[in-house]
Amino acid sequence: MVVRYKATVEYDGTAYKGFQRQLEQPTVQGALEQAINYVTGQYPTVIGAGRTDSGVHAQGQVVAMDLEWRHGTEALLRALNSNLPTDIAITSISEADKEFHPRFNAKRRVYQYRIYNSSVRSPLRHLQSWHVAQSLDVHRMASAANTLVGMQDFATFGQPPTGSITVRQVYYSDWRRQDEYLIYKIEANAFLYRMVRSLVGSMKCVGEGAWTVEDFVAAKDACDRSRTATTAPAHGLLLDSVIYD
Amino acid sequence: MVVRYKATVEYDGTAYKGFQRQLEQPTVQGALEQAINYVTGQYPTVIGAGRTDSGVHAQGQVVAMDLEWRHGTEALLRALNSNLPTDIAITSISEADKEFHPRFNAKRRVYQYRIYNSSVRSPLRHLQSWHVAQSLDVHRMASAANTLVGMQDFATFGQPPTGSITVRQVYYSDWRRQDEYLIYKIEANAFLYRMVRSLVGSMKCVGEGAWTVEDFVAAKDACDRSRTATTAPAHGLLLDSVIYD
Repeated sequence: MVVRYKATVEYDGTAYKGFQRQLEQPTVQGALEQAINYVTGQYPTVIGAGRTDSGVHAQGQVVAMDLEWRHGTEALLRALNSNLPTDIAITSISEADKEFHPRFNAKRRVYQYRIYNSSVRSPLRHLQSWHVAQSLDVHRMASAANTLVGMQDFATFGQPPTGSITVRQVYYSDWRRQDEYLIYKIEANAFLYRMVRSLVGSMKCVGEGAWTVEDFVAAKDACDRSRTATTAPAHGLLLDSVIYD
Repeated sequence: MVVRYKATVEYDGTAYKGFQRQLEQPTVQGALEQAINYVTGQYPTVIGAGRTDSGVHAQGQVVAMDLEWRHGTEALLRALNSNLPTDIAITSISEADKEFHPRFNAKRRVYQYRIYNSSVRSPLRHLQSWHVAQSLDVHRMASAANTLVGMQDFATFGQPPTGSITVRQVYYSDWRRQDEYLIYKIEANAFLYRMVRSLVGSMKCVGEGAWTVEDFVAAKDACDRSRTATTAPAHGLLLDSVIYD
């Protein structure tokens, strides 16, 4: 009997051209489908909650697929992880409702962005953070971040799917310092394409003093994609988790 | 005028066949010498405090080289880092005594080893830790680690340079838990070849219950290389720092 499975996936996105399957390119979806095929002999399509870009990491990506499997979810988890590359792992798996859809049913997504703020770059941290050499004021950046909470139009900071609206509901948006890292966390109902990296690039301008918090708010309120600052690089971004009812 | 420089180097060892230069193999020494040559036009040999193995990382490797340079150490640091690959960086550089030798003058070396102890492996941590799925008892491992302190013969746990003795002075040796990591730190006057990885492999046996602390001590006291357990993998090991007078 075919059952829909829900799985949580962690990956280091460095080696992949993003989540979504592409012809002749290494992708996370492609690697998952290949492992599932190897373990089960079946060819299900793996659907993900978020289509992370090339180089973006995930701690709590959520995926679903339909499978026939008679040996229990624990054995399925172990068999899949044994056949996935070391930079992808399934951290949990369970049977789901047959109508479950990881993207359409998701209520909130949480992303993290890490800036390594030190005069010298760090080779041990370079794959999972953005190195910014000039000293950043995390309090100013937090002030900017806090203005994002609420139901707002984020057209300045990203593209919507074709013909769709650019309004999103942000539940949480803040920066904190942890040693030499500045860590941004944002929770929203959904995100525009490139939105987190665009926000981080603009808030970095606030942190270094090139923009005031008011400049940032004015750019946001302009609802004009040309008003964003630089887009932060992909390798600092992490899909933290996806929240369902 | 030629001056001897002392530099601290951080690297992610994943892509390198160890520190020491080898013909037609990527090494940290080779990459440093290439960057120095590119910046200065000179061909100095870079001498390192520790010859880390293939895949081993360093936060505080210390190196020395003789250079003619007229633009100050700050400019030298920036020029070298601009020409080094992203997985190697010089974190500090200064003029040193012309007799300074990073290996012979070193009084103590500090290494760290990280075990990621969780039932499922972690793609975001896999390049800088050893994944051990079975639950480990960090208190038993710390008891074993503490028996290493003092002037002792470590023949069980490593090879010396040809014809040399296997006695080393250990100043500190302990495990601590940090979230899902078990972190081992050892400070000694010097180390045998493979010593830290050999110790960690044997202490892991203590942590999982296959060895008692007494088994570990008996293996140590036997001074017999065949009595070591498995050697822990290179990618969990980090040369933390090198201490001089």
